Amino acid sequence: MADASLATLQRSLGDPDVTYPLWPPLTSGCPTTSTDDVAYPLEVDYAYEQVPTDLFAARPARGVGLDRWAPLLPPLAAPGLGEGGTPLVELEPGVFVKDESRNPTWSHKDRLNRCTTSAAVSVGAPGIVVASSGNHGASAAAFAARGGLRCVVFASLEMPPAVDAFLHAYDAVVLPVPWEARWPLMRLVVERMGLHPVSNLTTTHTGHPFGPEGYKSVAYEIFTEIGVPEAVFVPTGYGELLFGVWKGFAELRRLGHSDRVPRIFACEPAAAAPLAAAVRQGLPAAHVEVGVTDAYSIVSAVSGYRGVVVVRESGGRALLLTDQRLRAAQAELARAGLWTELSSAAGLAGLRSVGEIDGPVVCVSTSSGFKDRSVAAQPPAHSALVVEPEWESVRRALRAAGIRE
Amino acid sequence: MADASLATLQRSLGDPDVTYPLWPPLTSGCPTTSTDDVAYPLEVDYAYEQVPTDLFAARPARGVGLDRWAPLLPPLAAPGLGEGGTPLVELEPGVFVKDESRNPTWSHKDRLNRCTTSAAVSVGAPGIVVASSGNHGASAAAFAARGGLRCVVFASLEMPPAVDAFLHAYDAVVLPVPWEARWPLMRLVVERMGLHPVSNLTTTHTGHPFGPEGYKSVAYEIFTEIGVPEAVFVPTGYGELLFGVWKGFAELRRLGHSDRVPRIFACEPAAAAPLAAAVRQGLPAAHVEVGVTDAYSIVSAVSGYRGVVVVRESGGRALLLTDQRLRAAQAELARAGLWTELSSAAGLAGLRSVGEIDGPVVCVSTSSGFKDRSVAAQPPAHSALVVEPEWESVRRALRAAGIRE
Repeated sequence: MADASLATLQRSLGDPDVTYPLWPPLTSGCPTTSTDDVAYPLEVDYAYEQVPTDLFAARPARGVGLDRWAPLLPPLAAPGLGEGGTPLVELEPGVFVKDESRNPTWSHKDRLNRCTTSAAVSVGAPGIVVASSGNHGASAAAFAARGGLRCVVFASLEMPPAVDAFLHAYDAVVLPVPWEARWPLMRLVVERMGLHPVSNLTTTHTGHPFGPEGYKSVAYEIFTEIGVPEAVFVPTGYGELLFGVWKGFAELRRLGHSDRVPRIFACEPAAAAPLAAAVRQGLPAAHVEVGVTDAYSIVSAVSGYRGVVVVRESGGRALLLTDQRLRAAQAELARAGLWTELSSAAGLAGLRSVGEIDGPVVCVSTSSGFKDRSVAAQPPAHSALVVEPEWESVRRALRAAGIRE
Repeated sequence: MADASLATLQRSLGDPDVTYPLWPPLTSGCPTTSTDDVAYPLEVDYAYEQVPTDLFAARPARGVGLDRWAPLLPPLAAPGLGEGGTPLVELEPGVFVKDESRNPTWSHKDRLNRCTTSAAVSVGAPGIVVASSGNHGASAAAFAARGGLRCVVFASLEMPPAVDAFLHAYDAVVLPVPWEARWPLMRLVVERMGLHPVSNLTTTHTGHPFGPEGYKSVAYEIFTEIGVPEAVFVPTGYGELLFGVWKGFAELRRLGHSDRVPRIFACEPAAAAPLAAAVRQGLPAAHVEVGVTDAYSIVSAVSGYRGVVVVRESGGRALLLTDQRLRAAQAELARAGLWTELSSAAGLAGLRSVGEIDGPVVCVSTSSGFKDRSVAAQPPAHSALVVEPEWESVRRALRAAGIRE
């Protein structure tokens, strides 16, 4: 059913002239251009001249998952779960929400993990290892289960109960460790057990070279539905989704399907905005102190070079968003029927922070409200109210809510 | 974008010769055929001869939601959220899981509530009222929010915290009441506040006449992907999803797209199986004592006539499933990367209980694992383990899980 991958090699973002064979995936960044201070990621190159001209002709069908885009992805050796193909919900005229909570594990991470677990299968690894306490780990565990791979998850001590529950449902080996210990321990698991790493191993973020390729499908899907928007607002932690969305549009331009790319806005929590710091300081990546925020899915003390590339190449910006702005956007989405994780609201919060954009705008919403830590906490006090089963008390409760005879 | 509805009138299931105008929706069952003991539901009839011949030609596109099927649905006056269009995930050759957790509020109920909130908008109601402590209420609240309607939810006292959290996110008025009081209080809210009821009001179940019409889209989507399967296994509480899936296939046959309907298997929890009782006793509906089960989404003390019609007309059966069987199916789905609510696993549990089926089979999985009450409870003990950040303890933990150097 799926076409074959046209992937040809790995190319360094540190120096595009530096390339490597497609295999093995260089999961510790570019050996040539990386320094002690900065690790440069790799991306995947393709035989673009061989891409079927009708690849973007029809609207994405359901059920086929990322296989629809196989020519422009690394080989999809691991089975899918119908990932991607998420709807664009029009919030107001010209403002669309790309609802990524509609993926197999209810977050965008499924697009990345279809690619990374496929890499693990292709190299014959017995399993994967990931450091995550949220959507990434849960998604990796699901695709490992689907592909018959073991999955080891180094988790932090503040993992949301819901995520913990679903990691165990997928039979992952969950190892809560002090967060600073996760990377050295992951390296040892990779070296000694031969598990394939599907999250970052380096001092500044590089992650898996094949992962962000999966996020290109977000751009492909948006294009098939509404063409090239004026701007895209992306919740940003390490910047992998950010890079994938930009690269997808850049490929559409390269393939002659459009003459421009949208401006891509990186939406970081104000409490931890390493990409904004890197852009401001003209650095390839930056480290920052992490302040207090509930947007745990996009909290990062360090950025990666991909984010800087996207902001520069797309004419976008790195936006800082307070939890107050994130909560306002989360509430706005809920009032429209979309219940999102606080971090997921960063896209819309970013749009609201810059005001009007002249032309269609897409705000990516990455995940479901179920993922927030607060969901497992006590329910809101007023819901504890038990109404006496008499009409008078019901009438009073409804009047208090503005509903009258 | 959407074609116009071809809905013509309401027809009684109690006597197909008894019909009523399309408006207003008869939300308390058929006034002519219902008795003190049994309330007969109504269904919607259409100008079938006017259905576009190419309606089922292409695979369902994403983003358009139920609008794709507008000709065969009641008027969709309320805005959608990209409901439906969920993937079929192949569990093993010939066994497909229809993953309904991929809907806007992560359950199949969104298909029903797009239709019921549309009815509320069409009749000019200021809002809707629903009695539910689970997926139905959450979905109704989301579509009410999307459509600018108020939403009142009569909830039981054992509402899962996650559902409570998202009802409040959608700004619903949540009124926990003793469960036996919900129907009389709902009737009063309907009569005195003019809110439109989107859940049941009658002694045996009828529900909203337009609701199950939305579930026909499950059959339409299955048909466009794999044609008419041999059998479909449906988690069953009141039997609205069951009826919608059957009616969708019956319409495909009526329209000449197929020459048969699949056998439809109603999958009820053994602790509460009123449909099985009705079928066994040859009754239009039955009341049963409710035993202990964790499958709260499909627990019902009373059935409705729709279920009897489906089992009879499709040559299917009503299956009783113990929590043990449900847990086994839930674990099997999780091992395949699909984390479902316990009630959602009833479809696969039903298939496993009858053994081999000769031909393609679809098991409907209605909702996400996040919805289970246990998710908000304490996480599994072994996940509380904090691994000392030394290699030796990690190695021991991995060896214990069967992962070795």
